[in-house]
Amino acid sequence: VPGAKLQFWYEFASTYSYPAAARIERLAAARDVEIEWRPFLLGPIFAAQGWRDSPFNVYPAKGRYMWRDLERICSREDLPFTRPSRFPRNGLLAARVALIGAAEGWVGAFTRAVYHANFAEDREISEPATIAEILRSLGRCDCAIIASAERTGNKALLKSRMEEGTELFWGNDRLEEALDWCARRA
Amino acid sequence: VPGAKLQFWYEFASTYSYPAAARIERLAAARDVEIEWRPFLLGPIFAAQGWRDSPFNVYPAKGRYMWRDLERICSREDLPFTRPSRFPRNGLLAARVALIGAAEGWVGAFTRAVYHANFAEDREISEPATIAEILRSLGRCDCAIIASAERTGNKALLKSRMEEGTELFWGNDRLEEALDWCARRA
Repeated sequence: VPGAKLQFWYEFASTYSYPAAARIERLAAARDVEIEWRPFLLGPIFAAQGWRDSPFNVYPAKGRYMWRDLERICSREDLPFTRPSRFPRNGLLAARVALIGAAEGWVGAFTRAVYHANFAEDREISEPATIAEILRSLGRCDCAIIASAERTGNKALLKSRMEEGTELFWGNDRLEEALDWCARRA
Repeated sequence: VPGAKLQFWYEFASTYSYPAAARIERLAAARDVEIEWRPFLLGPIFAAQGWRDSPFNVYPAKGRYMWRDLERICSREDLPFTRPSRFPRNGLLAARVALIGAAEGWVGAFTRAVYHANFAEDREISEPATIAEILRSLGRCDCAIIASAERTGNKALLKSRMEEGTELFWGNDRLEEALDWCARRA
């Protein structure tokens, strides 16, 4: 549907966003919906609710179920999965870099690569060295990009990006519904 | 698949269980999977986590999203929906009666009728009068059944039914996956 757009809000620490990020471009293309990639941070939102850790850690039964559920989803989607040795990982630098990617047109590939590093390769995505390696693997000049990501204006842009949308669809489970909604309304 | 069985655990106060209960027999029949209806209570589980109210009430943003999400799901499934004026409602009596229904073969129709009363008609399902009306509408003798439901042995049966299953699938969103899993393993 020409003109149909979906804002995809995602946090790099978030587990279910891994399959969502892997699936979204294929599903969007099938409906002719354009994706706006919107990296953001869940940490400040959790903190505002009085949570200092992921609910998946605070409530172990919830966490056990989530990891098993994620494993089944990845298996169904043929996505490699390794339970990360550390969870959640800090996605701040990745989110800042993704903003640069959104402006320059490589945000999709970068986003998928960061999720793959975190949830398939158990790599420490909070480390600048990991992000630099991912950028180089995509043929990008890592030093210049990380410097741009850490500039005050870019940091402020990420902070300002926390307003609420109009029609919200939460999670990988609602990806098809969200895209259908956009396609119907375009 | 002959021999394939799925245990469907549900709490009458639970919102997403309304579409799940409405959909499950049709989806199960399509896969030749037999349903074991397992009414249970979320209250004691929430209390064990230190919660005194539904997380949908404790976190208003989560609640707003859930009601909108549920409205969309019901619309997609052509299920009537009215946001209940009281939430959550106490499903203790309904769960006790459903156990009798499971033994006597009318648990599916009763379960759907209770969810319909709660989430389509905004009726007080914690009231014995509502449950009695539902039983009569199904052609059942309400007094005898409610008396059986309130017997010590039946109360104890419900209490004992809180053990954890083996492969868990949470929610209306995982209904198809749960049934497929059972069908594959039968």
